Amino acid sequence: MKARVYVSLKPTVLDPQGATIKSALVGLGHSMIADVRQGKYFDIAIADGADREQVSKELEAISLDVLSNPVIENFQVELLD
Amino acid sequence: MKARVYVSLKPTVLDPQGATIKSALVGLGHSMIADVRQGKYFDIAIADGADREQVSKELEAISLDVLSNPVIENFQVELLD
Repeated sequence: MKARVYVSLKPTVLDPQGATIKSALVGLGHSMIADVRQGKYFDIAIADGADREQVSKELEAISLDVLSNPVIENFQVELLD
Repeated sequence: MKARVYVSLKPTVLDPQGATIKSALVGLGHSMIADVRQGKYFDIAIADGADREQVSKELEAISLDVLSNPVIENFQVELLD
């Protein structure tokens, strides 16, 4: 089984890295770029034979405790197969 | 229009950050975790009225030239609406 966890800054949190990329792109002539926000994701391979519901619950806990900072970040868990 | 560009290390490139997260999770008792690889993504807002085909072409160029390092990274462009 494979899963993907997306972690992004909350919409209310400033993203200076995204803002820098945005102004670099506009400076390079890509004037159609209105905004850029950066996030990260984790591709997680799950051992065979794991129970789907248990995996889903455990991934939620992992995302909250380890992969994201819930003060400033949101996360989203996606089971891929 | 919105687009998302995913950037990940090529499968043949070592991902020490992912490996560290994997062993941390196994150490915390999540023994079902077989592998972790980290990637990043860019949520890009496109100015209204841009031509879809032109946007797609420009995003490919941006991804190759600015957002990724094509020596060690792959990218994938997704138009969201």
